Amino acid sequence: MTYCVAIRLAEGLVFASDTRTNAGVDHVATFRKMRVFSAPGLRLVLLSSGNLATSQSVASLLERRMRLHDGTGLSTVDSLYDAAALVGATLREVLARDADAAAGVDFSSHFLLGGQVDGEPVRLFHVYPQGNFIEASEDTPYFQIGESKYGKPILDRVLDYHTPLAQAIQCALISIDSTMRSNLSVGAPVDLVWLRPGDANAPSPVRLGENDPYFMRLREGWSRGLREAFATLPAPGWDI
Amino acid sequence: MTYCVAIRLAEGLVFASDTRTNAGVDHVATFRKMRVFSAPGLRLVLLSSGNLATSQSVASLLERRMRLHDGTGLSTVDSLYDAAALVGATLREVLARDADAAAGVDFSSHFLLGGQVDGEPVRLFHVYPQGNFIEASEDTPYFQIGESKYGKPILDRVLDYHTPLAQAIQCALISIDSTMRSNLSVGAPVDLVWLRPGDANAPSPVRLGENDPYFMRLREGWSRGLREAFATLPAPGWDI
Repeated sequence: MTYCVAIRLAEGLVFASDTRTNAGVDHVATFRKMRVFSAPGLRLVLLSSGNLATSQSVASLLERRMRLHDGTGLSTVDSLYDAAALVGATLREVLARDADAAAGVDFSSHFLLGGQVDGEPVRLFHVYPQGNFIEASEDTPYFQIGESKYGKPILDRVLDYHTPLAQAIQCALISIDSTMRSNLSVGAPVDLVWLRPGDANAPSPVRLGENDPYFMRLREGWSRGLREAFATLPAPGWDI
Repeated sequence: MTYCVAIRLAEGLVFASDTRTNAGVDHVATFRKMRVFSAPGLRLVLLSSGNLATSQSVASLLERRMRLHDGTGLSTVDSLYDAAALVGATLREVLARDADAAAGVDFSSHFLLGGQVDGEPVRLFHVYPQGNFIEASEDTPYFQIGESKYGKPILDRVLDYHTPLAQAIQCALISIDSTMRSNLSVGAPVDLVWLRPGDANAPSPVRLGENDPYFMRLREGWSRGLREAFATLPAPGWDI
Protein backbone atom coordinates (compact mmCIF):
# COMPACT_ATOMS: atom_id res chain seq x y z
CA MET A 1 0.00 0.00 0.00
CA THR A 2 1.01 3.64 0.17
CA TYR A 3 0.21 6.77 2.06
CA CYS A 4 0.59 10.24 0.53
CA VAL A 5 -0.72 13.57 1.78
CA ALA A 6 -0.59 16.97 0.14
CA ILE A 7 -1.65 20.24 1.75
CA ARG A 8 -2.43 23.61 0.19
CA LEU A 9 -2.05 26.52 2.59
CA ALA A 10 -2.01 30.29 2.35
CA GLU A 11 1.78 30.04 2.77
CA GLY A 12 2.33 27.34 0.16
CA LEU A 13 2.22 23.60 -0.40
CA VAL A 14 3.43 20.59 1.61
CA PHE A 15 3.80 17.07 0.20
CA ALA A 16 4.75 13.90 2.06
CA SER A 17 4.78 10.26 1.00
CA ASP A 18 5.98 6.93 2.29
CA THR A 19 8.04 4.59 0.11
CA ARG A 20 6.70 1.11 0.80
CA THR A 21 5.05 -0.96 -1.90
CA ASN A 22 3.66 -4.42 -1.53
CA ALA A 23 1.97 -7.08 -3.59
CA GLY A 24 0.96 -9.40 -0.80
CA VAL A 25 2.93 -9.50 2.44
CA ASP A 26 5.89 -11.34 0.92
CA HIS A 27 6.58 -8.95 -1.93
CA VAL A 28 7.53 -5.75 -0.19
CA ALA A 29 9.80 -3.14 -1.73
CA THR A 30 10.82 0.51 -1.51
CA PHE A 31 9.83 2.89 -4.28
CA ARG A 32 9.74 6.66 -4.44
CA LYS A 33 6.19 7.92 -4.91
CA MET A 34 7.16 11.58 -5.14
CA ARG A 35 8.38 13.19 -8.34
CA VAL A 36 9.36 16.77 -9.07
CA PHE A 37 8.84 18.40 -12.47
CA SER A 38 10.54 21.71 -12.98
CA ALA A 39 10.98 23.97 -15.98
CA PRO A 40 11.18 27.74 -16.49
CA GLY A 41 7.94 29.17 -15.10
CA LEU A 42 6.79 25.82 -13.71
CA ARG A 43 7.34 23.85 -10.49
CA LEU A 44 5.29 20.70 -9.91
CA VAL A 45 5.23 17.84 -7.42
CA LEU A 46 3.45 14.58 -8.26
CA LEU A 47 2.51 11.93 -5.66
CA SER A 48 1.09 8.56 -6.66
CA SER A 49 -0.68 5.57 -5.10
CA GLY A 50 -2.25 2.40 -6.40
CA ASN A 51 -0.91 0.05 -9.06
CA LEU A 52 2.84 0.64 -9.25
CA ALA A 53 3.17 -0.35 -12.92
CA THR A 54 0.47 2.15 -13.84
CA SER A 55 1.81 5.03 -11.73
CA GLN A 56 5.43 4.45 -12.86
CA SER A 57 4.37 4.38 -16.51
CA VAL A 58 2.42 7.62 -16.15
CA ALA A 59 5.40 9.30 -14.49
CA SER A 60 7.88 7.92 -17.05
CA LEU A 61 5.79 9.19 -19.95
CA LEU A 62 5.37 12.61 -18.32
CA GLU A 63 9.12 12.84 -17.69
CA ARG A 64 10.09 11.76 -21.19
CA ARG A 65 7.66 14.08 -22.93
CA MET A 66 8.82 16.99 -20.81
CA ARG A 67 12.41 16.31 -21.91
CA LEU A 68 11.41 15.97 -25.57
CA HIS A 69 10.00 19.49 -25.78
CA ASP A 70 7.64 18.33 -28.53
CA GLY A 71 4.78 20.48 -27.35
CA THR A 72 2.92 17.70 -25.53
CA GLY A 73 4.75 17.77 -22.19
CA LEU A 74 4.15 19.37 -18.82
CA SER A 75 6.49 22.26 -19.65
CA THR A 76 3.99 23.52 -22.23
CA VAL A 77 1.07 24.09 -19.85
CA ASP A 78 -0.15 27.59 -19.05
CA SER A 79 -2.02 26.56 -15.94
CA LEU A 80 -1.86 23.88 -13.26
CA TYR A 81 -5.36 22.94 -14.39
CA ASP A 82 -3.91 21.90 -17.75
CA ALA A 83 -1.14 19.99 -15.99
CA ALA A 84 -3.76 18.01 -14.03
CA ALA A 85 -5.63 17.33 -17.27
CA LEU A 86 -2.38 16.11 -18.85
CA VAL A 87 -1.73 13.73 -15.94
CA GLY A 88 -5.29 12.44 -16.29
CA ALA A 89 -4.91 11.98 -20.06
CA THR A 90 -1.60 10.14 -19.60
CA LEU A 91 -3.22 7.90 -17.00
CA ARG A 92 -6.03 7.05 -19.44
CA GLU A 93 -3.46 6.33 -22.14
CA VAL A 94 -1.58 3.88 -19.89
CA LEU A 95 -4.76 2.17 -18.77
CA ALA A 96 -5.94 1.83 -22.37
CA ARG A 97 -2.67 0.07 -23.18
CA ASP A 98 -2.34 -2.15 -20.08
CA ALA A 99 -5.62 -2.58 -18.27
CA ASP A 100 -7.46 -4.81 -20.72
CA ALA A 101 -4.79 -7.48 -20.54
CA ALA A 102 -6.01 -9.16 -17.37
CA ALA A 103 -9.43 -9.29 -15.77
CA GLY A 104 -9.70 -9.14 -11.99
CA VAL A 105 -6.53 -7.08 -11.52
CA ASP A 106 -6.79 -3.55 -10.18
CA PHE A 107 -4.72 -1.32 -12.46
CA SER A 108 -5.96 1.93 -10.98
CA SER A 109 -3.78 4.71 -9.60
CA HIS A 110 -4.46 7.99 -7.86
CA PHE A 111 -2.29 11.09 -8.20
CA LEU A 112 -1.87 14.30 -6.23
CA LEU A 113 -0.46 17.10 -8.36
CA GLY A 114 0.46 20.44 -6.87
CA GLY A 115 2.72 23.33 -7.57
CA GLN A 116 2.80 26.62 -9.36
CA VAL A 117 2.74 27.82 -12.93
CA ASP A 118 3.97 31.41 -13.19
CA GLY A 119 1.07 33.85 -13.19
CA GLU A 120 -1.11 31.61 -11.01
CA PRO A 121 -1.27 31.01 -7.27
CA VAL A 122 -0.09 27.63 -5.97
CA ARG A 123 -2.72 24.98 -6.67
CA LEU A 124 -3.31 21.35 -5.71
CA PHE A 125 -5.27 18.67 -7.60
CA HIS A 126 -6.35 15.08 -6.91
CA VAL A 127 -6.42 13.10 -10.18
CA TYR A 128 -8.75 10.11 -9.92
CA PRO A 129 -8.20 6.68 -11.53
CA GLN A 130 -10.65 7.74 -14.24
CA GLY A 131 -8.42 10.67 -15.19
CA ASN A 132 -10.78 13.39 -13.96
CA PHE A 133 -9.72 15.58 -11.05
CA ILE A 134 -10.70 17.93 -8.24
CA GLU A 135 -8.90 20.93 -6.78
CA ALA A 136 -8.18 21.68 -3.11
CA SER A 137 -9.86 24.78 -1.69
CA GLU A 138 -9.68 26.91 1.42
CA ASP A 139 -12.46 24.73 2.90
CA THR A 140 -10.67 21.48 2.13
CA PRO A 141 -6.97 22.26 2.17
CA TYR A 142 -5.59 18.74 2.00
CA PHE A 143 -5.86 15.55 -0.06
CA GLN A 144 -4.77 12.04 0.87
CA ILE A 145 -4.29 8.97 -1.32
CA GLY A 146 -3.56 5.36 -0.39
CA GLU A 147 -3.96 4.13 3.17
CA SER A 148 -5.51 7.38 4.32
CA LYS A 149 -7.74 6.67 7.30
CA TYR A 150 -5.22 6.21 10.12
CA GLY A 151 -3.61 9.57 9.45
CA LYS A 152 -6.79 11.57 8.86
CA PRO A 153 -7.84 12.43 12.46
CA ILE A 154 -4.69 14.48 13.16
CA LEU A 155 -5.16 16.44 9.91
CA ASP A 156 -8.81 17.08 10.75
CA ARG A 157 -7.92 18.33 14.23
CA VAL A 158 -4.91 20.51 13.45
CA LEU A 159 -4.95 21.77 9.87
CA ASP A 160 -6.67 24.63 8.19
CA TYR A 161 -5.85 26.88 5.27
CA HIS A 162 -4.06 29.40 7.49
CA THR A 163 -1.80 26.89 9.31
CA PRO A 164 1.84 27.98 8.93
CA LEU A 165 3.95 25.93 6.55
CA ALA A 166 6.29 24.62 9.29
CA GLN A 167 3.33 23.36 11.35
CA ALA A 168 1.79 21.73 8.32
CA ILE A 169 5.07 19.87 7.77
CA GLN A 170 4.95 18.62 11.38
CA CYS A 171 1.32 17.63 10.90
CA ALA A 172 2.02 15.73 7.68
CA LEU A 173 4.91 13.84 9.28
CA ILE A 174 2.80 12.91 12.32
CA SER A 175 -0.01 11.80 10.02
CA ILE A 176 2.44 9.49 8.23
CA ASP A 177 3.93 8.25 11.51
CA SER A 178 0.47 7.38 12.87
CA THR A 179 -0.22 5.43 9.69
CA MET A 180 3.11 3.57 9.82
CA ARG A 181 2.48 2.56 13.44
CA SER A 182 -0.95 1.10 12.69
CA ASN A 183 -0.39 -0.37 9.22
CA LEU A 184 2.52 -2.49 8.06
CA SER A 185 1.96 -1.65 4.39
CA VAL A 186 3.10 1.95 4.92
CA GLY A 187 6.77 2.41 5.81
CA ALA A 188 9.82 4.66 6.00
CA PRO A 189 11.76 6.32 4.52
CA VAL A 190 9.45 9.30 4.08
CA ASP A 191 9.83 11.82 1.26
CA LEU A 192 8.94 15.39 2.16
CA VAL A 193 8.90 18.57 0.12
CA TRP A 194 7.37 22.03 0.38
CA LEU A 195 6.95 24.96 -1.94
CA ARG A 196 6.21 28.63 -1.35
CA PRO A 197 4.50 30.86 -3.91
CA GLY A 198 7.10 32.49 -6.14
CA ASP A 199 10.02 30.27 -5.08
CA ALA A 200 12.89 30.74 -7.50
CA ASN A 201 14.21 27.20 -7.19
CA ALA A 202 12.78 23.80 -8.03
CA PRO A 203 11.28 21.95 -5.04
CA SER A 204 13.95 19.84 -3.39
CA PRO A 205 12.62 16.79 -1.53
CA VAL A 206 14.08 15.73 1.81
CA ARG A 207 14.24 12.01 2.61
CA LEU A 208 13.66 11.04 6.24
CA GLY A 209 14.73 7.56 7.30
CA GLU A 210 13.31 5.77 10.32
CA ASN A 211 16.26 7.06 12.34
CA ASP A 212 16.47 10.58 10.98
CA PRO A 213 17.24 12.73 14.06
CA TYR A 214 14.49 15.29 13.47
CA PHE A 215 11.87 12.68 12.56
CA MET A 216 12.77 10.76 15.73
CA ARG A 217 12.54 13.86 17.95
CA LEU A 218 9.21 14.76 16.34
CA ARG A 219 7.76 11.28 16.90
CA GLU A 220 9.04 11.08 20.46
CA GLY A 221 7.72 14.55 21.21
CA TRP A 222 4.32 13.63 19.83
CA SER A 223 4.15 10.34 21.74
CA ARG A 224 5.10 12.11 24.96
CA GLY A 225 2.62 14.93 24.30
CA LEU A 226 -0.17 12.43 23.64
CA ARG A 227 0.58 10.55 26.85
CA GLU A 228 0.58 13.82 28.80
CA ALA A 229 -2.66 14.92 27.14
CA PHE A 230 -4.18 11.55 28.01
CA ALA A 231 -3.04 11.78 31.63
CA THR A 232 -4.85 15.09 32.12
CA LEU A 233 -8.23 13.89 30.80
CA PRO A 234 -11.18 14.13 33.18
CA ALA A 235 -11.86 10.81 34.93
CA PRO A 236 -15.18 9.12 34.18
CA GLY A 237 -17.76 10.07 36.77
CA TRP A 238 -19.33 6.62 36.93
CA ASP A 239 -18.60 4.10 39.64
CA ILE A 240 -16.11 1.93 37.78
CA MET B 1 -21.22 1.87 8.72
CA THR B 2 -20.38 1.20 12.36
CA TYR B 3 -17.50 1.41 14.77
CA CYS B 4 -17.17 -0.93 17.75
CA VAL B 5 -14.18 -1.54 20.00
CA ALA B 6 -13.75 -4.06 22.81
CA ILE B 7 -10.77 -4.23 25.16
CA ARG B 8 -9.64 -7.03 27.46
CA LEU B 9 -7.48 -5.85 30.34
CA ALA B 10 -6.10 -7.34 33.53
CA GLU B 11 -8.81 -5.35 35.35
CA GLY B 12 -11.69 -6.41 33.10
CA LEU B 13 -13.43 -5.63 29.83
CA VAL B 14 -14.52 -2.42 28.11
CA PHE B 15 -16.97 -2.25 25.18
CA ALA B 16 -18.00 0.80 23.18
CA SER B 17 -20.05 1.16 20.02
CA ASP B 18 -21.62 3.89 17.94
CA THR B 19 -25.25 3.70 16.84
CA ARG B 20 -25.33 4.93 13.26
CA THR B 21 -26.37 2.68 10.40
CA ASN B 22 -26.56 3.61 6.78
CA ALA B 23 -27.45 2.10 3.45
CA GLY B 24 -26.15 4.83 1.22
CA VAL B 25 -26.00 8.42 2.43
CA ASP B 26 -29.75 8.97 2.29
CA HIS B 27 -30.78 6.01 4.43
CA VAL B 28 -29.27 6.79 7.81
CA ALA B 29 -30.72 5.51 11.06
CA THR B 30 -29.88 4.87 14.70
CA PHE B 31 -29.62 1.29 15.94
CA ARG B 32 -28.08 -0.16 19.08
CA LYS B 33 -25.16 -2.46 18.23
CA MET B 34 -24.51 -3.50 21.82
CA ARG B 35 -26.45 -6.26 23.53
CA VAL B 36 -26.10 -7.71 27.02
CA PHE B 37 -26.84 -11.37 27.80
CA SER B 38 -27.02 -12.25 31.46
CA ALA B 39 -28.00 -15.41 33.34
CA PRO B 40 -26.87 -17.01 36.59
CA GLY B 41 -23.14 -17.65 36.22
CA LEU B 42 -22.92 -15.80 32.93
CA ARG B 43 -22.44 -12.17 31.82
CA LEU B 44 -21.90 -11.43 28.13
CA VAL B 45 -21.72 -8.37 25.90
CA LEU B 46 -22.15 -8.68 22.13
CA LEU B 47 -21.17 -5.96 19.63
CA SER B 48 -22.00 -6.23 15.94
CA SER B 49 -21.08 -4.61 12.62
CA GLY B 50 -21.90 -5.26 9.00
CA ASN B 51 -25.24 -6.17 7.47
CA LEU B 52 -27.92 -4.99 9.91
CA ALA B 53 -30.48 -7.61 8.93
CA THR B 54 -27.94 -10.36 9.56
CA SER B 55 -26.66 -9.02 12.87
CA GLN B 56 -30.17 -8.28 14.18
CA SER B 57 -31.34 -11.78 13.24
CA VAL B 58 -28.38 -13.38 14.98
CA ALA B 59 -29.03 -11.33 18.11
CA SER B 60 -32.79 -12.02 18.02
CA LEU B 61 -32.25 -15.76 17.73
CA LEU B 62 -29.68 -15.72 20.55
CA GLU B 63 -32.03 -13.73 22.77
CA ARG B 64 -35.06 -15.93 22.04
CA ARG B 65 -33.21 -19.21 22.58
CA MET B 66 -31.78 -17.93 25.82
CA ARG B 67 -35.31 -17.14 27.05
CA LEU B 68 -36.66 -20.52 25.91
CA HIS B 69 -34.29 -22.51 28.15
CA ASP B 70 -34.47 -25.37 25.65
CA GLY B 71 -30.83 -26.29 26.09
CA THR B 72 -29.62 -24.57 22.92
CA GLY B 73 -29.16 -21.04 24.24
CA LEU B 74 -26.28 -18.98 25.57
CA SER B 75 -27.28 -19.72 29.18
CA THR B 76 -26.26 -23.36 28.70
CA VAL B 77 -22.58 -22.72 27.87
CA ASP B 78 -19.82 -23.75 30.28
CA SER B 79 -17.22 -21.51 28.69
CA LEU B 80 -17.02 -18.29 26.76
CA TYR B 81 -15.38 -20.34 24.01
CA ASP B 82 -18.66 -22.23 23.60
CA ALA B 83 -20.58 -18.96 23.60
CA ALA B 84 -18.41 -17.69 20.71
CA ALA B 85 -18.98 -20.96 18.85
CA LEU B 86 -22.74 -20.54 19.40
CA VAL B 87 -22.67 -17.00 17.99
CA GLY B 88 -20.73 -18.33 14.98
CA ALA B 89 -23.17 -21.18 14.44
CA THR B 90 -26.15 -18.81 14.69
CA LEU B 91 -24.49 -16.50 12.16
CA ARG B 92 -24.04 -19.42 9.74
CA GLU B 93 -27.68 -20.39 10.24
CA VAL B 94 -28.91 -16.87 9.38
CA LEU B 95 -26.62 -16.64 6.35
CA ALA B 96 -27.77 -20.04 5.10
CA ARG B 97 -31.35 -18.77 5.27
CA ASP B 98 -30.88 -15.27 3.84
CA ALA B 99 -27.65 -14.93 1.92
CA ASP B 100 -28.49 -16.96 -1.16
CA ALA B 101 -31.47 -14.78 -2.00
CA ALA B 102 -29.58 -12.03 -3.80
CA ALA B 103 -26.24 -12.03 -5.54
CA GLY B 104 -23.98 -9.01 -5.19
CA VAL B 105 -25.26 -8.04 -1.74
CA ASP B 106 -22.91 -8.23 1.22
CA PHE B 107 -24.75 -10.10 3.99
CA SER B 108 -21.70 -10.47 6.22
CA SER B 109 -21.49 -9.39 9.85
CA HIS B 110 -18.72 -9.30 12.42
CA PHE B 111 -19.25 -9.77 16.15
CA LEU B 112 -17.23 -9.03 19.27
CA LEU B 113 -18.25 -11.23 22.18
CA GLY B 114 -16.79 -10.75 25.63
CA GLY B 115 -17.68 -11.42 29.22
CA GLN B 116 -17.32 -14.03 31.88
CA VAL B 117 -18.66 -17.48 32.54
CA ASP B 118 -18.26 -18.44 36.19
CA GLY B 119 -15.09 -20.43 36.74
CA GLU B 120 -13.24 -18.73 33.88
CA PRO B 121 -11.42 -15.41 33.64
CA VAL B 122 -12.97 -12.67 31.52
CA ARG B 123 -12.47 -13.41 27.84
CA LEU B 124 -13.00 -11.61 24.53
CA PHE B 125 -13.62 -13.08 21.06
CA HIS B 126 -13.93 -11.72 17.53
CA VAL B 127 -16.39 -13.82 15.52
CA TYR B 128 -15.73 -13.53 11.77
CA PRO B 129 -18.40 -13.50 9.02
CA GLN B 130 -17.55 -17.16 8.37
CA GLY B 131 -18.52 -18.06 11.94
CA ASN B 132 -15.01 -18.91 13.12
CA PHE B 133 -13.38 -16.75 15.79
CA ILE B 134 -10.20 -15.58 17.51
CA GLU B 135 -9.56 -14.64 21.14
CA ALA B 136 -7.86 -11.52 22.49
CA SER B 137 -4.59 -12.05 24.34
CA GLU B 138 -2.23 -10.07 26.52
CA ASP B 139 -0.25 -9.21 23.37
CA THR B 140 -3.32 -8.01 21.48
CA PRO B 141 -5.75 -6.74 24.10
CA TYR B 142 -8.32 -5.11 21.83
CA PHE B 143 -10.50 -5.87 18.81
CA GLN B 144 -12.26 -3.44 16.50
CA ILE B 145 -15.02 -4.04 13.95
CA GLY B 146 -16.56 -1.73 11.38
CA GLU B 147 -14.89 1.56 10.43
CA SER B 148 -11.81 0.78 12.49
CA LYS B 149 -8.86 2.64 10.97
CA TYR B 150 -9.46 6.21 12.15
CA GLY B 151 -9.64 5.13 15.79
CA LYS B 152 -6.76 2.66 15.77
CA PRO B 153 -3.74 4.99 16.26
CA ILE B 154 -4.89 6.14 19.70
CA LEU B 155 -5.44 2.54 20.83
CA ASP B 156 -2.00 1.56 19.54
CA ARG B 157 -0.34 4.42 21.37
CA VAL B 158 -2.10 4.24 24.74
CA LEU B 159 -3.44 0.75 25.44
CA ASP B 160 -1.84 -2.35 26.82
CA TYR B 161 -3.07 -5.26 28.89
CA HIS B 162 -2.24 -3.50 32.16
CA THR B 163 -3.99 -0.21 31.39
CA PRO B 164 -6.45 0.60 34.20
CA LEU B 165 -10.13 0.13 33.34
CA ALA B 166 -10.97 3.84 33.72
CA GLN B 167 -8.19 4.83 31.30
CA ALA B 168 -9.29 2.20 28.82
CA ILE B 169 -12.79 3.70 28.93
CA GLN B 170 -11.32 7.14 28.14
CA CYS B 171 -9.27 5.61 25.34
CA ALA B 172 -12.26 3.81 23.82
CA LEU B 173 -14.35 7.00 23.88
CA ILE B 174 -11.56 9.03 22.26
CA SER B 175 -11.12 6.33 19.63
CA ILE B 176 -14.83 6.60 18.80
CA ASP B 177 -14.73 10.40 18.84
CA SER B 178 -11.78 10.44 16.41
CA THR B 179 -13.75 8.15 14.10
CA MET B 180 -16.91 10.26 14.30
CA ARG B 181 -14.96 13.42 13.44
CA SER B 182 -13.39 11.88 10.33
CA ASN B 183 -16.22 9.68 9.05
CA LEU B 184 -19.88 10.60 8.69
CA SER B 185 -21.04 6.98 8.77
CA VAL B 186 -20.16 6.66 12.47
CA GLY B 187 -22.24 8.72 14.86
CA ALA B 188 -23.50 9.38 18.37
CA PRO B 189 -25.03 8.34 20.67
CA VAL B 190 -22.34 6.01 21.94
CA ASP B 191 -23.06 2.91 24.01
CA LEU B 192 -20.48 2.08 26.65
CA VAL B 193 -20.22 -0.75 29.13
CA TRP B 194 -17.51 -2.32 31.27
CA LEU B 195 -17.22 -5.48 33.34
CA ARG B 196 -14.85 -6.54 36.09
CA PRO B 197 -14.01 -10.18 36.84
CA GLY B 198 -16.47 -11.57 39.38
CA ASP B 199 -18.99 -8.71 39.14
CA ALA B 200 -22.21 -9.73 40.85
CA ASN B 201 -24.49 -7.73 38.57
CA ALA B 202 -25.23 -7.85 34.86
CA PRO B 203 -23.31 -5.31 32.78
CA SER B 204 -25.30 -2.10 32.54
CA PRO B 205 -24.57 -0.01 29.43
CA VAL B 206 -24.36 3.75 29.60
CA ARG B 207 -25.58 5.78 26.63
CA LEU B 208 -23.64 8.94 25.83
CA GLY B 209 -25.31 11.47 23.54
CA GLU B 210 -23.39 14.06 21.56
CA ASN B 211 -24.02 16.53 24.39
CA ASP B 212 -23.43 14.25 27.35
CA PRO B 213 -21.52 16.43 29.87
CA TYR B 214 -18.72 13.93 30.52
CA PHE B 215 -18.30 12.99 26.85
CA MET B 216 -18.11 16.71 25.98
CA ARG B 217 -15.50 17.41 28.68
CA LEU B 218 -13.48 14.40 27.54
CA ARG B 219 -13.53 15.47 23.90
CA GLU B 220 -12.71 19.08 24.73
CA GLY B 221 -9.90 17.99 27.05
CA TRP B 222 -8.46 15.76 24.35
CA SER B 223 -8.69 18.42 21.65
CA ARG B 224 -6.98 20.93 23.94
CA GLY B 225 -4.32 18.39 24.96
CA LEU B 226 -3.60 17.58 21.32
CA ARG B 227 -3.24 21.24 20.41
CA GLU B 228 -0.89 21.76 23.36
CA ALA B 229 1.12 18.66 22.43
CA PHE B 230 1.33 19.92 18.87
CA ALA B 231 2.47 23.38 19.99
CA THR B 232 5.44 21.91 21.88
CA LEU B 233 6.78 19.83 18.98
CA PRO B 234 10.33 20.56 17.84
CA ALA B 235 10.41 22.91 14.83
CA PRO B 236 11.79 21.48 11.58
CA GLY B 237 15.49 22.32 11.26
CA TRP B 238 15.33 22.98 7.53
CA ASP B 239 15.21 26.45 6.05
CA ILE B 240 11.47 26.62 5.33
